[in-house]
Amino acid sequence: MTAAVAPVRVGVIGTGIMGADHARNLHRFVSGAVIAAVTDWDADRAAAVAAEIPGCRVLTDGFAIIADADVDAVLIASADHTHAELVLAAIAAGKPVLCEKPLAPTVAECITVVQAEQDALRDGRIERPVVTLGFMRRFDPGYVQLRDTLRSGAIGTPLLVHHVSRGVSSGPGATSESSVTGSSVHEFDIVPWLLGSPIVEVSWHSGRPTAVSDFQDPQLLHLRTADGVLTVQETFLNARYGYVIGAEVVGETGTAVLPQPAAVVTGGNLSVGHGLAADWRPRFADAYRLELQEWVDAIIAGRESTLATARDGLVAAVVSDAVIASMHAGGAATAVALPDVAS
Amino acid sequence: MTAAVAPVRVGVIGTGIMGADHARNLHRFVSGAVIAAVTDWDADRAAAVAAEIPGCRVLTDGFAIIADADVDAVLIASADHTHAELVLAAIAAGKPVLCEKPLAPTVAECITVVQAEQDALRDGRIERPVVTLGFMRRFDPGYVQLRDTLRSGAIGTPLLVHHVSRGVSSGPGATSESSVTGSSVHEFDIVPWLLGSPIVEVSWHSGRPTAVSDFQDPQLLHLRTADGVLTVQETFLNARYGYVIGAEVVGETGTAVLPQPAAVVTGGNLSVGHGLAADWRPRFADAYRLELQEWVDAIIAGRESTLATARDGLVAAVVSDAVIASMHAGGAATAVALPDVAS
Amino acid sequence: MTAAVAPVRVGVIGTGIMGADHARNLHRFVSGAVIAAVTDWDADRAAAVAAEIPGCRVLTDGFAIIADADVDAVLIASADHTHAELVLAAIAAGKPVLCEKPLAPTVAECITVVQAEQDALRDGRIERPVVTLGFMRRFDPGYVQLRDTLRSGAIGTPLLVHHVSRGVSSGPGATSESSVTGSSVHEFDIVPWLLGSPIVEVSWHSGRPTAVSDFQDPQLLHLRTADGVLTVQETFLNARYGYVIGAEVVGETGTAVLPQPAAVVTGGNLSVGHGLAADWRPRFADAYRLELQEWVDAIIAGRESTLATARDGLVAAVVSDAVIASMHAGGAATAVALPDVAS
Amino acid sequence: MTAAVAPVRVGVIGTGIMGADHARNLHRFVSGAVIAAVTDWDADRAAAVAAEIPGCRVLTDGFAIIADADVDAVLIASADHTHAELVLAAIAAGKPVLCEKPLAPTVAECITVVQAEQDALRDGRIERPVVTLGFMRRFDPGYVQLRDTLRSGAIGTPLLVHHVSRGVSSGPGATSESSVTGSSVHEFDIVPWLLGSPIVEVSWHSGRPTAVSDFQDPQLLHLRTADGVLTVQETFLNARYGYVIGAEVVGETGTAVLPQPAAVVTGGNLSVGHGLAADWRPRFADAYRLELQEWVDAIIAGRESTLATARDGLVAAVVSDAVIASMHAGGAATAVALPDVAS
Repeated sequence: MTAAVAPVRVGVIGTGIMGADHARNLHRFVSGAVIAAVTDWDADRAAAVAAEIPGCRVLTDGFAIIADADVDAVLIASADHTHAELVLAAIAAGKPVLCEKPLAPTVAECITVVQAEQDALRDGRIERPVVTLGFMRRFDPGYVQLRDTLRSGAIGTPLLVHHVSRGVSSGPGATSESSVTGSSVHEFDIVPWLLGSPIVEVSWHSGRPTAVSDFQDPQLLHLRTADGVLTVQETFLNARYGYVIGAEVVGETGTAVLPQPAAVVTGGNLSVGHGLAADWRPRFADAYRLELQEWVDAIIAGRESTLATARDGLVAAVVSDAVIASMHAGGAATAVALPDVAS
Repeated sequence: MTAAVAPVRVGVIGTGIMGADHARNLHRFVSGAVIAAVTDWDADRAAAVAAEIPGCRVLTDGFAIIADADVDAVLIASADHTHAELVLAAIAAGKPVLCEKPLAPTVAECITVVQAEQDALRDGRIERPVVTLGFMRRFDPGYVQLRDTLRSGAIGTPLLVHHVSRGVSSGPGATSESSVTGSSVHEFDIVPWLLGSPIVEVSWHSGRPTAVSDFQDPQLLHLRTADGVLTVQETFLNARYGYVIGAEVVGETGTAVLPQPAAVVTGGNLSVGHGLAADWRPRFADAYRLELQEWVDAIIAGRESTLATARDGLVAAVVSDAVIASMHAGGAATAVALPDVAS
Repeated sequence: MTAAVAPVRVGVIGTGIMGADHARNLHRFVSGAVIAAVTDWDADRAAAVAAEIPGCRVLTDGFAIIADADVDAVLIASADHTHAELVLAAIAAGKPVLCEKPLAPTVAECITVVQAEQDALRDGRIERPVVTLGFMRRFDPGYVQLRDTLRSGAIGTPLLVHHVSRGVSSGPGATSESSVTGSSVHEFDIVPWLLGSPIVEVSWHSGRPTAVSDFQDPQLLHLRTADGVLTVQETFLNARYGYVIGAEVVGETGTAVLPQPAAVVTGGNLSVGHGLAADWRPRFADAYRLELQEWVDAIIAGRESTLATARDGLVAAVVSDAVIASMHAGGAATAVALPDVAS
Repeated sequence: MTAAVAPVRVGVIGTGIMGADHARNLHRFVSGAVIAAVTDWDADRAAAVAAEIPGCRVLTDGFAIIADADVDAVLIASADHTHAELVLAAIAAGKPVLCEKPLAPTVAECITVVQAEQDALRDGRIERPVVTLGFMRRFDPGYVQLRDTLRSGAIGTPLLVHHVSRGVSSGPGATSESSVTGSSVHEFDIVPWLLGSPIVEVSWHSGRPTAVSDFQDPQLLHLRTADGVLTVQETFLNARYGYVIGAEVVGETGTAVLPQPAAVVTGGNLSVGHGLAADWRPRFADAYRLELQEWVDAIIAGRESTLATARDGLVAAVVSDAVIASMHAGGAATAVALPDVAS
């Protein structure tokens, strides 16, 4: 018998929708973790989450969480512009951190973070990478099954990918650019992960714009990976009819389709069908849980996790910039130029 | 801030396929539980499981597990004939117990267990029921969604249920009777749970027997619930093509179909389709995890869980006996007569 | 070059929904046939159909149609009680006849018809059978594909069949018995056709009755064929949600499912699905057309068609009687006793 | 009673795969038509088809068919380069003609044909257009249902279309250009038909090329219609796994998906699925039949049919040229410039 292990004590920074969900998930469904503390700019919101979780304290801010002696690992779900400085603080403290995407709003800040982690590793201040990024689709059982199918050779070499990402409605303040950085960025991570090849060239195209938004929606992106595969990505934030993520990979000898969530099919009123999710949370509930479990497992085991890394966050940001550059250049094919730090 | 809670220390009796899976599930995927000890008649098998789980001891037998001061709750996955005496010991020890089905091989033994728990409750030796039974389908997200659909009124009052349960091959020693007690018993629990009405009459019928078994397979059962609904149950242990659980509920205004597991659909060789599970474990992996989580949550919260009870185990055994009586009586309609203790 | 052939001149008796549809189908979509004459007890209704079809005359009654020198073949779609005498007249005239089911309302009358045709054949008054019956499902591309699948050996020997037949609402005057003779009779024909084995034993069972009808609906029938296969047949006339015919054949090594009609799947309002037919006509439009085409082709070619025969109509009537006997005997298993003429 | 109408006597020019299929379809499944004569450069092939059809003569060449006094209408399924001169002869003879695509191999020749028909109309030599083109998808029940869905407003204004066209293997001599003119040309016709808006701009893109062909395959085309809708078209001639035509229209409030052909779903060997067609003929068998029926019906009724016109053939050729121009210009967006005669 080896000694029983103590649970990982997690501190959660930001208890909006995502942060509160993460806290509850860690508390209720993840083995080996406890929520030690939470914080939020809205103290009431933090207190409400803490009240659900025995033993959970409310601290004043993110830096207090990171510094707290009884916090082993940090989950960042605060506003995007706070991510970089909090991640830097976590690196400095040598504590594992799971940061919701984006790593930072600009490529420059992403580079700073990647550089800081590389420096800390080189200097021996941390033993292994501590920064992970919340690209949860990598843990979605459907995407995992799809990648396994590709790797099994069942459809031969991939040649073409059709990928769609549809939501019910865009949030306030959405723009053509934020559609790229806030939504399509998930595809900039998952497509290379699926194919095992980085995106090297992109272009941006427009569908007929929906009447309900004042920016370009839907958008159609071309993502060319280094293996020559062309991915056609539809991003449609105001698709209204439901939240749907779809993918088909066309290979040399067959095709493979991303599973849709299992649902009760009902007949009634001369029709038959099933309901759709209204947003991403039910669609990716399993992915979030499994991502958090792997994060905690790796911390306990003292190994690097399979979550996305700081570099993955940087690469996704660089691709976003290239897509936006194409958008501003009338849809021209645009190369993805990675900074040295990501090479 | 309320005080953090200590995890439930579980002892697992029996580390065959099911017991080992439960131990790993509790250890790896269930929040709030640790595996304190395991035992098995095959000590090597127990040791192998213990070696995967930090802090887990191997004890000599089930009674040692139940008696152990550092075991808060007991999971029984040993041979069927041992269930009753172990559950009785757990009741005597006042420890929560999750017993794999069956509660006991005979109705008489089931009655003894139910009676023992009722006595302990009446005498105040236990505060609330401690016995739960592993009818995991109640936690399958598909069945839960189906029951929610029925309760929502989406298809009106249920009138008829088609239910199929197919496996790839029966184990050694299977008989026409063990098909009922070992497989159809799951339907004897889940159908009343789904409809909210107990089974009051049954009959047994036969399909054309498959050439690969020496007992009656497939079987077709009629289950009449008190609400008048007729459930037609196909049980086919040697269906060979895959492990499939299917259900359709036909209501006054529509129908509802149990979801099938999400799967990657692939095209190749002039066909399109997806793989099927080879046995029940992948099919019900989520159900097992969620059942264990609810069991642990209820223990921590000091409340009765939503798992099946000792009485549910007894009732399923009584229905099994009625179905076998019909089998032996040429398929005659047979009333389900509950003993007083289950009334 | 062989001489071009003259089209078959068809006379249609009865221009209600079915008869008018048949007349239009023959006129518009069937090669090699023209509608020479129609009749109906409601002369206006007959005139309306004739007005759509160039060259079509209106005659006074069915016997005038059969006797008409410019009518080569007769289609009977008049009231059920008129079928037998009209078919007998067609046999006497030696003209090919396609009679909508039933051949006659009673087994006794069916026997008379079968006997009359056998006598005419034996006496050389007709060269080949002239009576065919409108069991159109035999020409449904889905059923044909399903039978081909069974015959290909793809699922091994059939063991069990699940079959459902649901309509939106029963017509006026429907009874528990007419559900059998008017609707389930289609299964009494198609199941033996599918399996290649006659029904030898039946029993009748009831679901919870729907509140919207005053007879037993839904019904569940057991049909045992001579090969030992058990078919479980749900007939639900007031299923309300749509017209649906479903079938699954469970074999030794796999299962095969009757295709549902192709339909546009639409997403909208947080759901995805497709419409259902409101009655049998769109569902079996192709079957009707292909049945009529084969009838005409066989007449032109001077060969026996693959349509159901007078004997098939008699057999279906005998099975209906056995099911109704079981209904009146509390669901007892009831043997199907064929009269000598059908042996 | 109006007088019965005489059948349309059709002459078929070219009895290769398509021509022979058309002849058999007209003879066996189309009401109101007879095959009066056939011809082919391979006289044996023509004789073989004629032998199946009573009354069918073999003539020496296409011009003999067109000139024949007992031929009312002409179907052209000979080699592509012969189409224009034969159609011109049919216009000159004032006989209805159904020409398989393409109308002619070059835009210039298409213009000549369109001009010739317009001249004949203006001069009163023909009463109504006589030239129709075999874009049979317009008669596919699935496409018709999809267009009906769009027109019903069920998904709001269309914004984006995903369309895929996959075959098992390209024929001998296929090139990147012939993929456009021989296969994608079907989409150049059906997409505007579906949307009710002409294609005004196109661009050409490439997937990773399959290893089994020596030209660019798969290809991805952008088709912009005048209504602003972007259609993304995948054409993959060597998809190997099956012949599949797929379409999804994304609208303001929902999506609509082209139905796939109904098929028996079978389970076996730990998987479940159904077969796919190996080529376009089973997929579009109904479309061909219904197209031919409408062609014949319109001739009998003396009205213009709903088949594609000579102008439609010209427009498709112009779009093909624009796509090929984009291919040769590195995928540049290319405007579709219609000649005056098509305006």
